[in-house]
Amino acid sequence: MARPTPQRRVTIIDVARHAEVSTTAVSKVLRNAYGTSPAMREKVHRAIADLGYRPSAAARGLRGQTYTLGVMVPDIANPFFPEILNGVTASLGNTDYQVLLAPGCAGEHAEARTIESMIDRSMDGIILIAPVSPRAHLEHIAGIIPTVIVGRHARSTIFDTVADDDIAGAALVVDHLVGLGHRRIAHIEHLETEPSCIEEMPNMIRAEGYRLAMRGHGLDAEIDIASKTYTREGGYTGARELLNRKRLPTAIFAGADIAAMGVLDAVAEAGLSVPGDISVAGYDNTTFAAFSQVSLTSVDQAGWQIGADAARLLLERIADRTRRSAQVKLSPTLVVRNTTAPPPAR
Amino acid sequence: MARPTPQRRVTIIDVARHAEVSTTAVSKVLRNAYGTSPAMREKVHRAIADLGYRPSAAARGLRGQTYTLGVMVPDIANPFFPEILNGVTASLGNTDYQVLLAPGCAGEHAEARTIESMIDRSMDGIILIAPVSPRAHLEHIAGIIPTVIVGRHARSTIFDTVADDDIAGAALVVDHLVGLGHRRIAHIEHLETEPSCIEEMPNMIRAEGYRLAMRGHGLDAEIDIASKTYTREGGYTGARELLNRKRLPTAIFAGADIAAMGVLDAVAEAGLSVPGDISVAGYDNTTFAAFSQVSLTSVDQAGWQIGADAARLLLERIADRTRRSAQVKLSPTLVVRNTTAPPPAR
Repeated sequence: MARPTPQRRVTIIDVARHAEVSTTAVSKVLRNAYGTSPAMREKVHRAIADLGYRPSAAARGLRGQTYTLGVMVPDIANPFFPEILNGVTASLGNTDYQVLLAPGCAGEHAEARTIESMIDRSMDGIILIAPVSPRAHLEHIAGIIPTVIVGRHARSTIFDTVADDDIAGAALVVDHLVGLGHRRIAHIEHLETEPSCIEEMPNMIRAEGYRLAMRGHGLDAEIDIASKTYTREGGYTGARELLNRKRLPTAIFAGADIAAMGVLDAVAEAGLSVPGDISVAGYDNTTFAAFSQVSLTSVDQAGWQIGADAARLLLERIADRTRRSAQVKLSPTLVVRNTTAPPPAR
Repeated sequence: MARPTPQRRVTIIDVARHAEVSTTAVSKVLRNAYGTSPAMREKVHRAIADLGYRPSAAARGLRGQTYTLGVMVPDIANPFFPEILNGVTASLGNTDYQVLLAPGCAGEHAEARTIESMIDRSMDGIILIAPVSPRAHLEHIAGIIPTVIVGRHARSTIFDTVADDDIAGAALVVDHLVGLGHRRIAHIEHLETEPSCIEEMPNMIRAEGYRLAMRGHGLDAEIDIASKTYTREGGYTGARELLNRKRLPTAIFAGADIAAMGVLDAVAEAGLSVPGDISVAGYDNTTFAAFSQVSLTSVDQAGWQIGADAARLLLERIADRTRRSAQVKLSPTLVVRNTTAPPPAR
C-alpha cells in the first residue's frame, strides 16, 4: 500500500483569507483576546471549521497557551480514579482543552518527575490526584503552573483543593457498624511517613476519623489499625494481620475499595464468611463495590463531582492566576450493601 | 504564604559552560546525534545532572523531538488497559520518554479528535489501543506520526501491530467448555459496523473464533451470539437476552472480562447459580477475574507483554521511520477458575 501524501497544513493566513479579516484578527480570536466583536469571532470560527484549521500546539505553547491540561493519577489500576477523570472531561466538554493523563506511580520521586514533565510540555494547568509530594514541593509547583490538588486537605494561597470530608466519611462507617452491634471494628489505613503530608492526606484523615468516631462511641479500647497501603495487596496483608489477632475483629473498615478487595480475598482464604463471620466496608463506592458478586458497603465521595469541580477551578485559575484560592469539601454518603450485617452471636 | 519566586531556568549555555564543551556538542548529545564520543556524552550528562537542566519540551518540539509518547485507550474503566500501560511504561524504563494517556472514548469522532490533539502536541509517536477508526484513517495517521496499533489485526506497510491470537483464544474457551460436556455455549460479542474494521478488530475475530470452534466440534446448530458491546452494561443486557431464549444456554462466553462482570450480574439477578446452572468465561484475565469473590475462567492475552512489545516497536519506528512494519501476534492461554464446571444434569 502506498504511503499517503501528507497534506499541506492549513495556516492562519488561509483562515484570514477565507474569513476576509486580517491575520491579527484571527490571532486575537484564537487567543480569546479583548477587542474582538461577536461578528468577528463568528466569521473566524466559521472559517476555522470550513478549512479544518488546527493551530500547532507547539507554536501556541511558545506564544502562551497549549490548551492542554495534565491530570496526574497515582495508580491507574484503582477503579476510583476513572470516575474522577470522567468528571474532569465532562466539565471541559465544549472547550478547546485536551486532557492528558500521566501516571504518578505513587512515589515521591516518580511523582516529581511526572509533574516536571507536564511543566516541560507547557501544559496550561494541572490537576494532581492524591499527590504524595511534600507540601513545600506542591507550593513550588503551584508557583510555576496553575494547579488544583484533589484529595489533600491543604490550605494554600496559590493552589485550590477539592476533597471529600474524610472525617465525616469514616464516621459514617463506624456509626453504621456500631448501629449493627459491632464493637471490635478494625481499620486498614494507608500509612504516610512524610511529616508535611500526615495532616493533609485523605488516608490519614480517614484513619483519624475512624479513631474519633470509635472514641465517640466509647470504644477507645477497641481501636485497632493495620498500617498498610491502599492497594489490593495492602488490604490482603492488613486483613491477614488482623485475622491473626488473639481477639478477632467482627468488622474491618478498609480506607479504600481497592484495599477492601484484598480484605475479601484474605477473609475467603481464611475460610470465614462475609458478612456472617466478619463485616467488611470500603471507601470510594467504585463500580467494583456495586458489582453483584461483591455488593460492598462503601462510602460514596462522589468522584465524578470531585473531578468536575477540579476542572472548573483549574479553568478559573488559568484565566486569573491571582484569584483567591478555594478549598472545596464535599459531603460523603454511605451506601449500605451486603457485606455488613450484625456481628455473629457469641 | 508568599508565592515562591520562580527560579531562572538552566539553559543549554549553562550546561555547555559547566561541561566545558560547545553548545553544539550539548545539542548533539541531547538529540542522540551521530558524532559524539562516549566521553563527550558522559561529560554532558554529568553537567545536566549537576545543574538539573531540563530541555523545554516546546522548544524541543520545534527542533524535532518532544520525548513524549501518546497512548490512546478507548475506556479507562476497563481493567485490561492498565495492564497494557504498565507494560509500556516498564519498557520505556530508563529512556527520556514520558508517556501521556489520552482517553479515546470509544467513538470514531472522539477518537479522531484525540489522535489529532496528540499530533498537534508534537508527540514523537503514538500507541493506539483498540482504535475504532476506519482503516484508511489509521493509514493516514501513520503517515504523519510513528504509530503502533494494539489489538487490531491489520497488515500495513507503515504502522506496526501487536495483538493476541484471538482465533486461538476463543477456541481455548470453547474447547474447555465442550470438554466439560457443554453443547449450548452462547457468546457475547462487541458488534462492529464499520466495514474496514470488521475483519481486523479483535472482538470480531473472537466471535469468528467462537463460530469456527463450535463448527469444529459439530455444534453449528448451537451457535448463538448476542451482539452488544464490551462493557459491563453490554454483558448485562446480552446475558438477559440469552437468558430469555426458549432453550437456555448452559454456558456463556463473554468476549471481555468487563462484559463478563455484567453477565454475572444478570445471572445473579435471574436467581441462577454460577457454575451450577450456567458456566461463565471471560477474556483478558484482568485482576478482576483473579479476585476471589469472582474467580472467573478467562483467556490470558498477556497485556503487560503486549504493552512492552508495542513500546519497543514504537521506539524502533521513531528511530527509523522507513523500517519494515512488523505484526506481532502473541499466543493466549486459558486460566481455568471457579466459574466453569460441567453443565447441570438434565
